[in-house]
Amino acid sequence: MASIKKIGVFTSGGDAPGMNACVRAVVRTGIYLGKQVVGIHQGYQGMIDKKFINMDARSVRNIIQLGGTVLKTARCAEFRTPEGREKAYKNLVEEGIDALVPIGGDGTFTGAEFLSREFGIPVICVPGTIDNDLYGSDFTLGYDTATNTVIEAIDKIRDTAASHDRLFFVEVMGRDSGCIALHAGVAGGAEAILLPEKETAIDDLIVKLEEGALSKKSSCIVIIAEGDKNGGAYNVAKRVKEKFDFYDIKVTILGHLQRGGTPSSFDRVLGSRMGYAAVKALIAGETRKMVGLKGNMIQLTDLEEAIHNHSFKLEEDLLEMATILSI
Amino acid sequence: MASIKKIGVFTSGGDAPGMNACVRAVVRTGIYLGKQVVGIHQGYQGMIDKKFINMDARSVRNIIQLGGTVLKTARCAEFRTPEGREKAYKNLVEEGIDALVPIGGDGTFTGAEFLSREFGIPVICVPGTIDNDLYGSDFTLGYDTATNTVIEAIDKIRDTAASHDRLFFVEVMGRDSGCIALHAGVAGGAEAILLPEKETAIDDLIVKLEEGALSKKSSCIVIIAEGDKNGGAYNVAKRVKEKFDFYDIKVTILGHLQRGGTPSSFDRVLGSRMGYAAVKALIAGETRKMVGLKGNMIQLTDLEEAIHNHSFKLEEDLLEMATILSI
Amino acid sequence: MASIKKIGVFTSGGDAPGMNACVRAVVRTGIYLGKQVVGIHQGYQGMIDKKFINMDARSVRNIIQLGGTVLKTARCAEFRTPEGREKAYKNLVEEGIDALVPIGGDGTFTGAEFLSREFGIPVICVPGTIDNDLYGSDFTLGYDTATNTVIEAIDKIRDTAASHDRLFFVEVMGRDSGCIALHAGVAGGAEAILLPEKETAIDDLIVKLEEGALSKKSSCIVIIAEGDKNGGAYNVAKRVKEKFDFYDIKVTILGHLQRGGTPSSFDRVLGSRMGYAAVKALIAGETRKMVGLKGNMIQLTDLEEAIHNHSFKLEEDLLEMATILSI
Amino acid sequence: MASIKKIGVFTSGGDAPGMNACVRAVVRTGIYLGKQVVGIHQGYQGMIDKKFINMDARSVRNIIQLGGTVLKTARCAEFRTPEGREKAYKNLVEEGIDALVPIGGDGTFTGAEFLSREFGIPVICVPGTIDNDLYGSDFTLGYDTATNTVIEAIDKIRDTAASHDRLFFVEVMGRDSGCIALHAGVAGGAEAILLPEKETAIDDLIVKLEEGALSKKSSCIVIIAEGDKNGGAYNVAKRVKEKFDFYDIKVTILGHLQRGGTPSSFDRVLGSRMGYAAVKALIAGETRKMVGLKGNMIQLTDLEEAIHNHSFKLEEDLLEMATILSI
Repeated sequence: MASIKKIGVFTSGGDAPGMNACVRAVVRTGIYLGKQVVGIHQGYQGMIDKKFINMDARSVRNIIQLGGTVLKTARCAEFRTPEGREKAYKNLVEEGIDALVPIGGDGTFTGAEFLSREFGIPVICVPGTIDNDLYGSDFTLGYDTATNTVIEAIDKIRDTAASHDRLFFVEVMGRDSGCIALHAGVAGGAEAILLPEKETAIDDLIVKLEEGALSKKSSCIVIIAEGDKNGGAYNVAKRVKEKFDFYDIKVTILGHLQRGGTPSSFDRVLGSRMGYAAVKALIAGETRKMVGLKGNMIQLTDLEEAIHNHSFKLEEDLLEMATILSI
Repeated sequence: MASIKKIGVFTSGGDAPGMNACVRAVVRTGIYLGKQVVGIHQGYQGMIDKKFINMDARSVRNIIQLGGTVLKTARCAEFRTPEGREKAYKNLVEEGIDALVPIGGDGTFTGAEFLSREFGIPVICVPGTIDNDLYGSDFTLGYDTATNTVIEAIDKIRDTAASHDRLFFVEVMGRDSGCIALHAGVAGGAEAILLPEKETAIDDLIVKLEEGALSKKSSCIVIIAEGDKNGGAYNVAKRVKEKFDFYDIKVTILGHLQRGGTPSSFDRVLGSRMGYAAVKALIAGETRKMVGLKGNMIQLTDLEEAIHNHSFKLEEDLLEMATILSI
Repeated sequence: MASIKKIGVFTSGGDAPGMNACVRAVVRTGIYLGKQVVGIHQGYQGMIDKKFINMDARSVRNIIQLGGTVLKTARCAEFRTPEGREKAYKNLVEEGIDALVPIGGDGTFTGAEFLSREFGIPVICVPGTIDNDLYGSDFTLGYDTATNTVIEAIDKIRDTAASHDRLFFVEVMGRDSGCIALHAGVAGGAEAILLPEKETAIDDLIVKLEEGALSKKSSCIVIIAEGDKNGGAYNVAKRVKEKFDFYDIKVTILGHLQRGGTPSSFDRVLGSRMGYAAVKALIAGETRKMVGLKGNMIQLTDLEEAIHNHSFKLEEDLLEMATILSI
Repeated sequence: MASIKKIGVFTSGGDAPGMNACVRAVVRTGIYLGKQVVGIHQGYQGMIDKKFINMDARSVRNIIQLGGTVLKTARCAEFRTPEGREKAYKNLVEEGIDALVPIGGDGTFTGAEFLSREFGIPVICVPGTIDNDLYGSDFTLGYDTATNTVIEAIDKIRDTAASHDRLFFVEVMGRDSGCIALHAGVAGGAEAILLPEKETAIDDLIVKLEEGALSKKSSCIVIIAEGDKNGGAYNVAKRVKEKFDFYDIKVTILGHLQRGGTPSSFDRVLGSRMGYAAVKALIAGETRKMVGLKGNMIQLTDLEEAIHNHSFKLEEDLLEMATILSI
């Protein structure tokens, strides 16, 4: 394989805190190791629209602490067609980009896998998504920050819940993964946690809430992942209300504020390590891999496995612990 | 009038950050000036249920930084009846409480006004509500903290909005008052602000958003007070979407997290000053007044005027400025 | 006077949170009203070095939430000489700048006053300094944010102080003004507050601390403005230690982190209002004035009075209150 | 071994955020599993002074989000003597406490190891210290929060550094361990990081700073662990100043505010898991172990090894990466 000369870096899919730390790491590591680096704005759409920007070390100054992504992100229907991808690849070649660091979730990876398979361009992906739902990394970029954002909100809600003897249903992000809900539920001292991976009968929830009421809890907070099978916080609240009126009941949907915010120390270090490792892996001749954190070490996973393996299971022991700790 | 011996302090209505700073000030000022102080839990309900707790200086230690109210709050239907109030007053007499510092909004004040008029007990009220909608004080307790909570959320939403070229509709508290919406809208750099006090035609809003799109704004945030006449953020979003699809559109309802959180420096100083002034006013023989901040001075306003005067108007100049600053 | 065509805006002296909100307001208000606006980098030094940047509405996008100043600031010895000022003015004329909005403290104002007096260029100044020590405005830009930064630090210190039964001496900014120390001391529930404006005998401080120990306080925090006559936190700690050893004693100097940070809602609104008002005043033909907030209204004060009048006095009543509330 | 009936839990040594989450977990897990739980105030001193408090599930309500430790902590000279330990043990027996969960650092563990060896009482220790310097756990309790506190301070300092073209030396905690300095340095984008584990020649530091100046860095931040061999931030600043004056130089000592603050999500989950696991281990008959997090699993390590093994080494690769990422 010919030596890499110019690395393209981009963010795609939902933005996640820490992406900027990762972009900064890709740019500076690449430059330090004698490569050129190009920022591609708006992901795959930007490849098609030729939104290429040459980066130098100063291009990424003072961005490590910023939420969102300075390279922006976008959905791109055209890229899902063979013609779209061909156009994108032609533009990359024209620009001289001969390797890619895509940062995003499984949709991003799927695009990168296509590009690499169809045209042979080396890709090393970075898992950037708040959902923490990718095989091959203990943590995805943005997850720690999002969880902290959720518990700051829960702390605020607890203040008012405890002042009023109220029951709050708080809906957090996670269509397929209950990771944010579970960890934020433990950290927020939630009385119950409802997850996509595990069905919760409303009657069982009510029993749990009644026990709390009997043991003189002055307030209750129930965390509900958006993907919970009962249909979200409003539906759960409605059904609980029909049978249980010990507390005044309120609902909060945290929504998109979970995506933003200045990244935590953990996510900045993680983004830096992943971006650094991705460039090193590309230069070492690797391709079609995802960088990930396992234990305290950076490891590579086959991209296809990262995309298709959904074998990581819910931390059932944490869920059991959460039940015990909220007595 | 006989000298006051024992002051009752309570919080009622919606909780607001800074209430604890105020309770602390009432307790310690009262004790310092040789009075006894009793905390009444859960407001008027607590009077009826005899939830009286003797306070000493250490009872309020380490609470100045806490959100919510350590005295708790509750709605109380019984107190709205003459019999309920008589029971409450009987309990106050039995407990030896001969003066009151109620902390809350106009509902709280109305209850206090009744008690005072019907039974002659001296009351000095403190305006504690995040809405900043009371005559007689430039600021109510909790408003500054709530506004900061809103802009922290807007900052996070802006991160993700700018990464995706999105248009967000963010609904904030304020049924009758657009104060939070207006100030958070200015501070958050919102592209438009919809308020209860001023009807906004959806078509005018769309014109404004189109201008933003033309001037290459990468994202837009519209702040909507819950009392806006168009029917809240979901309705506005739906109606805008029908005619304007330049941006991807999202909705966030901030909800009750606006009530909680550790109070800002401003609210802690304000709560301290108001609690301190309320006790001094009671001891000086005042009654049926609300303490308020006008300019940088604490002033007393007749309670009836604080309850019934709604003459403060929207800061139209700020709204005009907001339009100019978001070009 | 000829109509203004091109407004120069700059920040000078110590940076303060909210300066960016003010720069944004000056730029957009100027443009909205048909003027050109030039950002001058690094204040007076930038005038001499011709660091002029034409601003459009998008130049100030997404800066309202940033700490520091995007226009940067610098000290400039050369500008203190008549030759330096002449050079600066010549450059302004060459650039076509015919009016100025300087943002800073009394040093900044003095420079502006000279320029205006010597060369007749209209200036409207904005008080941007965390010290809140300028006549003509109830609040200076950055003061509210700095005070919140201090109380967040005090809250953290209180956690560890209360866990260990410790006495902390915390030094905060304020060479001549005890405003931050006083308000943060009240808001942080400090046991004592030492200020430049009022000498505190160490023996009196020890008496106060002994009373706290007797009344079973588990920790004590003493706030000391850097300009206190006893010589700063280390000196006070040393002298207290010689006579009072009930608690383990620690010292914290908060230092420059008090200057930075994302501005509070209050400072963003204040910066916006002041920048907006400054441009409107210039266009209305005003000069040699400072915009300020009095009560809830923007008012103009003669620049010379803002510079030379030091008649605002310490809020003695707040200091007395602080003593009572910390029993 | 007889079945455990009453578990004593205490915190000792320096306080750390997350200790309260751990205490809550110990109490509720113990109660849920049919044991009694006693909180021992002020660690070993409290054992000697009989500061025992019976805990029920409600005793630990609403503490998961609090910094510091509700059980308080203290140093205890008497416990270092055999007589002191005998007295402590006698009091434990009298109180019926037949197992212990000590939370703290290596000093705490040493005390527990003595107690257990001399008197046979089962102990399972939890690593609670912000320094992250214990063998047997990837993370100690409080480290994540402390690192976040440091980067929040660095972000603020960066605002003002970048506005003024300044060079800041920021001293962070870590007498023997550079863990906080290294991670906060990476996360804060520091230009250089000085650690106890690795000597840095001042001349090499100056070369690095000169390179930064040449590459047009507008500001520099150097993080220095308090245990760095050059003698702390003031000394380093002084020596750099003698040879390098491109930037204005300032020093900040973050000090004890690094200990406090509401714990991060990570530390709350970690504290919960560790407390839960400690009780389960005690009940399972384990003793003289430390619970720790390895990868994503809770594991037990022999207490003596946790105390005496200092074989974990500096993450040299992270330090190298930090150098590259700050070009």
